[in-house]
Amino acid sequence: MSFDPSTLVYNDAGLIPAIAQDASSGEVLMMAWMNAEAVARTLATGKVTYWSRSRQSFWVKGESSGHVQHLVDFRIDCDRDCLLLTVNQQGPACHTNRRTCFYVEVRSGAEVELMQPEV
Amino acid sequence: MSFDPSTLVYNDAGLIPAIAQDASSGEVLMMAWMNAEAVARTLATGKVTYWSRSRQSFWVKGESSGHVQHLVDFRIDCDRDCLLLTVNQQGPACHTNRRTCFYVEVRSGAEVELMQPEV
Repeated sequence: MSFDPSTLVYNDAGLIPAIAQDASSGEVLMMAWMNAEAVARTLATGKVTYWSRSRQSFWVKGESSGHVQHLVDFRIDCDRDCLLLTVNQQGPACHTNRRTCFYVEVRSGAEVELMQPEV
Repeated sequence: MSFDPSTLVYNDAGLIPAIAQDASSGEVLMMAWMNAEAVARTLATGKVTYWSRSRQSFWVKGESSGHVQHLVDFRIDCDRDCLLLTVNQQGPACHTNRRTCFYVEVRSGAEVELMQPEV
């Protein structure tokens, strides 16, 4: 079956959540949003491209920081309303310069910071 | 810093996306939604509890199917608007009886089903 981005299920803002997972470590790096055109661009270019809700514009991950995500594998979930992208991440994924955006753990009712920004 | 579920960033419907990842394999299993009370219940019980948008009720994962998710690790992302839960998944995570909800891959412009339902 050939893939058509318009067959995905988008929310009222025309967006679908996309989870990025590191292809080598398996670490979940971040979650961001795509519209149908961002999905198409990601597949066409191999550079993961989100839709920035704050800037209301396409966001080629790493375009300004150099922390590019090269697409390895593109998956769709059972309800077609969530994406899982396996990526080769160049540099840290998080805008705080940490490897992953998920660097805070809740442990015994307290928040614990698991890693520091890379230098 | 002690953790308060009300300090997370929820969408207009009062929900936050939660990604479930298998603690042993590292496989991303599913993404679903939680409200503040579901977050509190998940942490209090250790049984991952979502908010079902279709049924508008709490959804203790596996309550009817037996495919329970036992919480191992609870993480918050940098923007506090997404959760990552590491879990011990009992049985298949997907309602289609597949190990993960992300069983369709887009490969060379076509959709490929990567696994069959477990029996």
